[in-house]
Amino acid sequence: MLRRQLPQLAKFSKLMRPSIGIRTMATAPLDSSKLEICRNQKKSQPRPNNELVFGRTFTDHMLTVEWTAEKGWAAPQIKPYGPLSIDPSCCVLHYAFELFEGLKAYRTDEGKITLFRPDKNMERMNKSAARICLPTFETDELIKLIGKLIEEDKHLVPQGKGYSLYIRPTMIGTSNGLGVGHPDKAMIFVITSPVGPYYKTGFKAVRLLATDFATRAWPGGVGDKKLGANYAPCILPQLQAAEKGYQQNLWVFGPEKYITEVGTMNVFFAFKDSKTGKKELVTAPLDGTILEGVTRDSILALTREKLDPKEWEVNERYYSINEVAERAKKGELIEAFGAGTAAVVSPIKAIGWQGKDIEVPLLPGEQSGALTKDIASWIADIQYGREKHGNWSRVVADVN
Amino acid sequence: MLRRQLPQLAKFSKLMRPSIGIRTMATAPLDSSKLEICRNQKKSQPRPNNELVFGRTFTDHMLTVEWTAEKGWAAPQIKPYGPLSIDPSCCVLHYAFELFEGLKAYRTDEGKITLFRPDKNMERMNKSAARICLPTFETDELIKLIGKLIEEDKHLVPQGKGYSLYIRPTMIGTSNGLGVGHPDKAMIFVITSPVGPYYKTGFKAVRLLATDFATRAWPGGVGDKKLGANYAPCILPQLQAAEKGYQQNLWVFGPEKYITEVGTMNVFFAFKDSKTGKKELVTAPLDGTILEGVTRDSILALTREKLDPKEWEVNERYYSINEVAERAKKGELIEAFGAGTAAVVSPIKAIGWQGKDIEVPLLPGEQSGALTKDIASWIADIQYGREKHGNWSRVVADVN
Repeated sequence: MLRRQLPQLAKFSKLMRPSIGIRTMATAPLDSSKLEICRNQKKSQPRPNNELVFGRTFTDHMLTVEWTAEKGWAAPQIKPYGPLSIDPSCCVLHYAFELFEGLKAYRTDEGKITLFRPDKNMERMNKSAARICLPTFETDELIKLIGKLIEEDKHLVPQGKGYSLYIRPTMIGTSNGLGVGHPDKAMIFVITSPVGPYYKTGFKAVRLLATDFATRAWPGGVGDKKLGANYAPCILPQLQAAEKGYQQNLWVFGPEKYITEVGTMNVFFAFKDSKTGKKELVTAPLDGTILEGVTRDSILALTREKLDPKEWEVNERYYSINEVAERAKKGELIEAFGAGTAAVVSPIKAIGWQGKDIEVPLLPGEQSGALTKDIASWIADIQYGREKHGNWSRVVADVN
Repeated sequence: MLRRQLPQLAKFSKLMRPSIGIRTMATAPLDSSKLEICRNQKKSQPRPNNELVFGRTFTDHMLTVEWTAEKGWAAPQIKPYGPLSIDPSCCVLHYAFELFEGLKAYRTDEGKITLFRPDKNMERMNKSAARICLPTFETDELIKLIGKLIEEDKHLVPQGKGYSLYIRPTMIGTSNGLGVGHPDKAMIFVITSPVGPYYKTGFKAVRLLATDFATRAWPGGVGDKKLGANYAPCILPQLQAAEKGYQQNLWVFGPEKYITEVGTMNVFFAFKDSKTGKKELVTAPLDGTILEGVTRDSILALTREKLDPKEWEVNERYYSINEVAERAKKGELIEAFGAGTAAVVSPIKAIGWQGKDIEVPLLPGEQSGALTKDIASWIADIQYGREKHGNWSRVVADVN
């Protein structure tokens, strides 16, 4: 069905253009030079790494920037972390005018704080905004502002493998009133949270439930955007997976049962052809139903650079849970892992499908396959500044 | 395609059961007898009817009820209308844990304030809540609490044809923290707004754009629930329709181009067979992709009671925009209208499809067809207390 619908998807994709901008040229752009800083009187001390829970503790400051259709972006403000005052008729509470991004700041061995490919997150944030008629912004200005926010709280960026400062840029519609229309007021806010590994189990292989009893995203929908709207509806299926002993859903789409993504991660599978011995790393194509993951993109680039093309093929293509099940039966399934900012690389050890588990091989005595392990370390080396890769790593603060 | 997917829909519908309740029996139920009232010192005077804009002005009080997984529902509070204090990490702002209802209170000629079928709204609100793992509640208790809220501001319920007090019960997840999981804190709040007719044009026929360039809902999704998540993604297509001179989108689904709903309304079409002379009133079936409208349900019940079965058939069935276009060409399309709480009954005069307008006949010199007009007055008679219909109208306050 997906293949049949591809021409239609091209038509849908016109929607993604911010063609109906709700910004006019006359209004103010986002401008980091207008930043106003009101410092928190309290200066928190870093918590021990073992006390960090993903997205529970926040740093001392937050960034906010207000927008109106009339005037554009107001002066950005860094101020003490604290509650927002929101009218009960505000459109963010009724019609889900909300979107977010997730990126991380890493502390290098030299005490520099770096962001990993923040331009990709900002670009995606603008696409999300345009899709739900929230204002777009100057991406590099927001990166600079995030840098200044991190600068304020840089002593709270944790150190160590798997530890980082999680950054959550968020945009919400702030118009008050119950008429369903495009917001004439909005706000960007950015909060930051010192974090360790996303899964409590750490770098341990996870179990996913292949899920066709609910649908996360569809052609002509918004599954490729990082909207709040894509998340709440996935929690009930996630609880149902958890009841059966699986950490997450693996969303499969349509009668063909194409593998799409995990909801919080993109997903990759590695096969080895039993006749030719040739290996293939595969992930679903960006067809509008899966998130355009920054980690996904980075893995595609790195594997295409680093893997021997005589040994490996790297493909973005449709593949189904049935293909995975059949190839596992033939011994051709060699690895599988999730990829996303929160979990970075998350090895998969089993996938529940039709009441049984498809087992994914792991290295003897370890929690991942060989390629998964390599990819995780390639990315970590860039993130923590041990390797250079073009402009992927951007220094935003210096702890020294 | 929809037909093919029906067996799958039955499977999906298991999801709708609040089977994984996040309430346990040990926690407190919603209990209207625990109500605490803190009156607003300010007492607003009613505005003239001609100044009322849908959902812009609110009354002096609001109702709030907080919930925690540990303790259940706290004591309900009626207090002055005012902003909520929301942490920037709150799950309602990131993952769209939010849902709402819309119902209206009507002032009868005798000065009674009535609600129209509030039990239906409360039932649907619980279904929406269960679907995104927010807590369910005792429906009759919330109706009683809404009655008490209206009692406080009953002098602000406007009088006159098409005027009413719009009531917006809302539930949001209020857990703080960025982990994606089910909320352990939530809140119901109810605000009320004196309103006139939803469309600024009043009881005037609207123009809809049949829309297949974006998709509102999908089997296995949440299109039948009143979640915030269903609204923000529909605004861009709505602006695109507006640019072409249409007030709303008429969502058509799948390769068959089945007519589903309008996004803010369900929709009905009336045909007259040119051979037999028999008439048919038709609306899409409740298959999980359209909202289970209270007005839709009321219209089906009333037309099945009141229309002569020798003359009329009333059907819930799949029908496509192509069928509508073909029958219009044959002169068999006799009426079309939207149906929802906000607009009640909203006659349709044209539908844009493939670059042309399908014209819908109206009574000479009027803004609706004959049946549309009858249905509007049948419902209004019940809503404003001029006619009885079972327990559809519930008195909640008395202005005298």
